[in-house]
Amino acid sequence: MTNDQEYLLNNRDKFNEELLEFIAIPSIAALPEHAKDVYKAANWLKSKLSAVGVENVEIMDTGGQPAVYGDWLHAGIEKPTVLIYGHFDVQPVDPLELWDNDPFEPTIKDDKIFARGASDDKGSMFIPIIVFEAIYKSNGSFPFNIKFLFEGEEEIASPKMPEFVSNNVEKLKCDMIFSADGGQFSENEPNLAVGFKGILGFDIEVIGPETDKHSGLFGAAIANPIMALTQLLSSMKNLDGEITVDGFYDDVVPLSDNDKAEIARVPFDEKEYLKLTGAVGLDGEAGYTAPERIGGRPTLDINGIWGGYQGVGTKTVLPAKANAKITCRLVANQKPKEILKKIEKHVNDFLPNGVIGTVIPLQDEGDPLLIPENHRSTEVARDVLKKVYGKEPYMIRVGGSIPILSAFYKYLGIHATMFAFQLDDENWHAPNEFFRLSSFYKGQEAYRQLFHEIGNLSP
Amino acid sequence: MTNDQEYLLNNRDKFNEELLEFIAIPSIAALPEHAKDVYKAANWLKSKLSAVGVENVEIMDTGGQPAVYGDWLHAGIEKPTVLIYGHFDVQPVDPLELWDNDPFEPTIKDDKIFARGASDDKGSMFIPIIVFEAIYKSNGSFPFNIKFLFEGEEEIASPKMPEFVSNNVEKLKCDMIFSADGGQFSENEPNLAVGFKGILGFDIEVIGPETDKHSGLFGAAIANPIMALTQLLSSMKNLDGEITVDGFYDDVVPLSDNDKAEIARVPFDEKEYLKLTGAVGLDGEAGYTAPERIGGRPTLDINGIWGGYQGVGTKTVLPAKANAKITCRLVANQKPKEILKKIEKHVNDFLPNGVIGTVIPLQDEGDPLLIPENHRSTEVARDVLKKVYGKEPYMIRVGGSIPILSAFYKYLGIHATMFAFQLDDENWHAPNEFFRLSSFYKGQEAYRQLFHEIGNLSP
Repeated sequence: MTNDQEYLLNNRDKFNEELLEFIAIPSIAALPEHAKDVYKAANWLKSKLSAVGVENVEIMDTGGQPAVYGDWLHAGIEKPTVLIYGHFDVQPVDPLELWDNDPFEPTIKDDKIFARGASDDKGSMFIPIIVFEAIYKSNGSFPFNIKFLFEGEEEIASPKMPEFVSNNVEKLKCDMIFSADGGQFSENEPNLAVGFKGILGFDIEVIGPETDKHSGLFGAAIANPIMALTQLLSSMKNLDGEITVDGFYDDVVPLSDNDKAEIARVPFDEKEYLKLTGAVGLDGEAGYTAPERIGGRPTLDINGIWGGYQGVGTKTVLPAKANAKITCRLVANQKPKEILKKIEKHVNDFLPNGVIGTVIPLQDEGDPLLIPENHRSTEVARDVLKKVYGKEPYMIRVGGSIPILSAFYKYLGIHATMFAFQLDDENWHAPNEFFRLSSFYKGQEAYRQLFHEIGNLSP
Repeated sequence: MTNDQEYLLNNRDKFNEELLEFIAIPSIAALPEHAKDVYKAANWLKSKLSAVGVENVEIMDTGGQPAVYGDWLHAGIEKPTVLIYGHFDVQPVDPLELWDNDPFEPTIKDDKIFARGASDDKGSMFIPIIVFEAIYKSNGSFPFNIKFLFEGEEEIASPKMPEFVSNNVEKLKCDMIFSADGGQFSENEPNLAVGFKGILGFDIEVIGPETDKHSGLFGAAIANPIMALTQLLSSMKNLDGEITVDGFYDDVVPLSDNDKAEIARVPFDEKEYLKLTGAVGLDGEAGYTAPERIGGRPTLDINGIWGGYQGVGTKTVLPAKANAKITCRLVANQKPKEILKKIEKHVNDFLPNGVIGTVIPLQDEGDPLLIPENHRSTEVARDVLKKVYGKEPYMIRVGGSIPILSAFYKYLGIHATMFAFQLDDENWHAPNEFFRLSSFYKGQEAYRQLFHEIGNLSP
């Protein structure tokens, strides 16, 4: 057993206690009355990082919730510089009555820590800190240059972080990024995320008469904006689930046979998946499996629609207007702004007569990310996970978007590798969130090996 | 000048005073706190009818608001029996601050009576009563058998009247019906209504997942119920405005060249009409003019739609369900129940995969009415209007539906002829409703001539 392994083992109780102390701080970013707690958690982190030998530790103003930065940069220029990311804010706890213990009184039961934030993300983000501590304290040095960045607003969608990253490019500059937010596929199956969808959000508004009108007097003579909107929306997708906006797929990187094989390797239980949704069947773009669509194909989702009378019974109005909210999930190499232009052209070309139609872009906009093959931080993570789990990790394309990862790529030019140990059955964002102690320990061993592997690399 | 003309002239002040007294009763059917006033108006009518020689006058229980009935049946079996209809309930008065006088303190200004109900319908329905009085009092007899039926719930869509009519077929049995609710085209241009649209109301509900789901995790793999609903709805109408539900037009009586000529004769100012709506242009079923569509072609109107997220910004949900409210305005000889079956079949045939779709019939259902050519009560009304106005009446097909007229036809087998003298600029249902004294007097002369003409007819 190496010195650092021994350190981790001998200090297990101490680390567990520290983690419980950290988790007990109710750092809910969404609730103004918890602003001081978010700051308290930042301060706790600052103390912890400073205590273990991290230097230049500071709480940084992002314009929103605070971020915590620290570094140790004495490994020399022949060693890589690596940024470690995580977040110390947590989700709100409602409905409180469904919790078996106070969400901020962490309780260990059946080798699981039950508390808000235990799994997402305090438990996972604490791991690289204590592994740094173990290596640094037991060896008196660290094998590469390391920077830590922890944010306090991930659970409210990181509104200020992209700008913060763009304002701190020099400070955050690095050769590799690892995110301690993410997760593994299961207790015994590792995974790595190699693709994230981008996003584009917009509303469509269709206007008919100035106010709601009597459908008997006007319904037959002027256009109905709801009917016009349904005609417009249905012109955007055919019954094969293909998006029919001209040029929508132009920049999509097609799924290669190898990509499809990687996706097919990931277990997908159709029955279980359908049970989760309650839907009558799978549905989507023809020619692709559901996992291929979820990870590798762009979508156009109507998130909401409204217009006219929504009450009981009948109201014979010709409505004044109709609205829809839409988001497109994009894949590499689609660009949100270009897709928006194509949508606008489509609305212009396909809007039925007699109404006015407008596309209203929303702020949500994010580039898709596709980690290239042989990407170095992903490759080293893959090797480590394979050793720790004894299995080749599943290479996952994520159906969602992670704003901070987009910002890292956009401003630092680096694709982050998610290296984290929570599991998706751990009630994230829900009552009775928990983190497995076994994941906490396995994560420590994985990060320990990862850090030594990185120490062998050139910058 | 005949005796009855003299009677009307000599009693003009008395009739005006009586009308103001009648109008002053705030008989608002929609408001429970005015229930006693609706009854008070019924009682006022009962007294008036009894005082002028109408017999068997009674306030009848409809299960909802009261109705008033009375008759005079001594003209003998060689004379026709005629039912006169009107309503004594009125609309609410909000917003009160926009009225120039108290809505129930009738005020005469510029030869107009300003008050709620002055035009719709107390002023107009009072006319046949005082014309009966004039003929009966000045001649000691009346030239045909007459029945009066006045309802107290027209302004709340006559919920109990169809059943009331069906329960009183023997009492209401007649050869002709004239409605003293309706109106003329303008001060100098008469009209007659020869068609009314029927109505069919239903909701469509489309269900996807059990609850709203994350669009990144599920949007690409299961069907979106809003998209499915828009595809379904847009499959019901093509871009030429034609309803594409199989068999929808099967029973429609086509507009003949003569019908089209009658419709074309009615003034229609496209600019003025569009100004009323604020819409950018006319739109509807190809191959027909707007007035042809309004009066003579069936419609399928989406009155409301909703589903998913309707707030500000973006919420990336795959919504659980989507709903639409639809009414079809039907023309002769479409039957609501058969159209509903065709709609249900269409939904069944065209519902996209992966969702559950249901048609939920609403109670609103009414047969279309088309008064046949040479219909006797319409012909006699036409002759009288031509004499009184010096102009051939416009034969109008009404885009809306009038429940009581459908009930008369359904249960008594008689098409009613609207013979009324309000004008549609008189702020019905709005502040500062008024009735022109000139219409009140012209109406008296028209009803006087009508009653004498009917006296010359056989049953």
